[in-house]
Amino acid sequence: MDKYLITGFSGFVGKHFLDLLELKGEAAIAMGVDLFPPNFEYQKNRNIQCEFMRLDLLESNAVQSVLSKFKPDYLLHLASYSSVSFSWKNPVLSFQNNANIFLNILEAIQIYNLPTRILSVGSSEVYGDIKTENIPIIEEQSLNPKSPYAVARISQELLSKIFTDGYGLDIVLTRSFNHIGPGQREIFAVPSFAKQIVEGHMRGEKSITLRAGDLNITRDFLDVRDVVKAYYVLLKQGRKGEIYNICSGRGVSLIEILTLMERTMDVRCVISKDPKLLRPVDNAIIIGSNAKLKKETGWNPEISLEQSINDILMDGKFKQNK
Amino acid sequence: MDKYLITGFSGFVGKHFLDLLELKGEAAIAMGVDLFPPNFEYQKNRNIQCEFMRLDLLESNAVQSVLSKFKPDYLLHLASYSSVSFSWKNPVLSFQNNANIFLNILEAIQIYNLPTRILSVGSSEVYGDIKTENIPIIEEQSLNPKSPYAVARISQELLSKIFTDGYGLDIVLTRSFNHIGPGQREIFAVPSFAKQIVEGHMRGEKSITLRAGDLNITRDFLDVRDVVKAYYVLLKQGRKGEIYNICSGRGVSLIEILTLMERTMDVRCVISKDPKLLRPVDNAIIIGSNAKLKKETGWNPEISLEQSINDILMDGKFKQNK
Repeated sequence: MDKYLITGFSGFVGKHFLDLLELKGEAAIAMGVDLFPPNFEYQKNRNIQCEFMRLDLLESNAVQSVLSKFKPDYLLHLASYSSVSFSWKNPVLSFQNNANIFLNILEAIQIYNLPTRILSVGSSEVYGDIKTENIPIIEEQSLNPKSPYAVARISQELLSKIFTDGYGLDIVLTRSFNHIGPGQREIFAVPSFAKQIVEGHMRGEKSITLRAGDLNITRDFLDVRDVVKAYYVLLKQGRKGEIYNICSGRGVSLIEILTLMERTMDVRCVISKDPKLLRPVDNAIIIGSNAKLKKETGWNPEISLEQSINDILMDGKFKQNK
Repeated sequence: MDKYLITGFSGFVGKHFLDLLELKGEAAIAMGVDLFPPNFEYQKNRNIQCEFMRLDLLESNAVQSVLSKFKPDYLLHLASYSSVSFSWKNPVLSFQNNANIFLNILEAIQIYNLPTRILSVGSSEVYGDIKTENIPIIEEQSLNPKSPYAVARISQELLSKIFTDGYGLDIVLTRSFNHIGPGQREIFAVPSFAKQIVEGHMRGEKSITLRAGDLNITRDFLDVRDVVKAYYVLLKQGRKGEIYNICSGRGVSLIEILTLMERTMDVRCVISKDPKLLRPVDNAIIIGSNAKLKKETGWNPEISLEQSINDILMDGKFKQNK
């Protein structure tokens, strides 16, 4: 019976990974750890055996205790302070909660000589400034980090390499691009749009005023359910020490997403530009290449953008109706 | 009156930098901080005003308190857990005491908006594995870190870049190669040889058994008194955001150093190979290029290898006679 330890369990991705394990019908034991308990059901109505434990990954003794007792076969490292803007305001906290937490995990696995395969979930932010000719971005692209957050993510990658080469740890790495899907917090653009549109719709409005930043930026959005499938397949088949982009391979502008939402909900939006949502140094276009992941694992994204948007809106409606 | 804050003050380099400030005859105030007080005189018989304060750079509140009160014009960041082998045994401690301590300093300077020019002293270890055709190593060489220590040093560099570009901090960076000179701890090869030879000499031996590792490795040794001159000139003239190799530009094998010592002391050594002193994955040859430093600052090394070796041996003799 395979044992999965999932850090950052209570976040957006944790629930979807648990759903996937359930779907696979594997005889598996999952243990989720996070600073705060999840706001989703992880035991009731589930066939899979799942425990949750509060854990601050900065506390190395606690990390060692949990890992040495649970002895996971697989460790999905989702935990991260993943906000770029937070990292500018609190560089020390951001750095510690990205680089140091990961290092504590690696040290625990090394000290207790655990046979754990680790998926180090990282971020496309490590690429930083990207010239148009380098799009779609491949894994060999040189790194040009532009935030304290991105530096912490690079440290995480370099430490993975050191622990793989030097201590023989079994680590596979990702650079994950933008995720979308049901359950995402509304601090991100797509769920924020969905929330505003659903609320307007519930009030019976046909023309909805929508607060937004720059709608012209193009990003590579992948549905979280396709993301967790990629994580699963990499845990099982990824090559030790290798880095894989996790992305859809195509660019979608925020204006396209908004248009899809308008059509689905049969409303029109009037944009109210919010200067607070504008980032001065953002890349206009970020698109990743998923060729390596596809070629090596056979993974393919299965959820269309239309379905993602529909499910996000339905999820928003459901929340409003509760 | 210029104020210098020197972290890692009690180490090998701190005393020599203070000596240099004294020599310059500048009206300067120096404050040294370290975990432990220095074992050299920093007040008595000195014209320069110098204070010492115990400080753990991991304690961000204490760092902020010291920096905001002292408001240094120049900060020489010598503090580091600089042992590669320690970083393999204690990766978390090593990483924290290299990357996190530096980040605490940067955050304090940013929060209090101090006009401090920082010299981020780093390490040639960031280059890692180097092919022979890339010797002498220039600053543009791609990095290939091979230890947790080297990863922490790369984090330090990347954070410097982020804080220079993003917050406007004034940081100059070094990649320092091997130092030698009077006062170095005997855990390093050159002072260890000197100690063994001086001790044998004091016992009246003409043939001295010397414990050593691989004597064929070639390194770029720079006298610490030339190192601190480079640090001084970079604090004054280095370009913000730039990285400079600190090195002699020439390679010397350990066997050459040993031969010099034998000649100076008129003894012969019989080598007793100590497997504990052999590092399995060491580069055979490391030589840096100091062309950038020379060109931009006019700095030139002034102390010959013969003089370095002589002074190290005399320093050892002095210690034995005390």
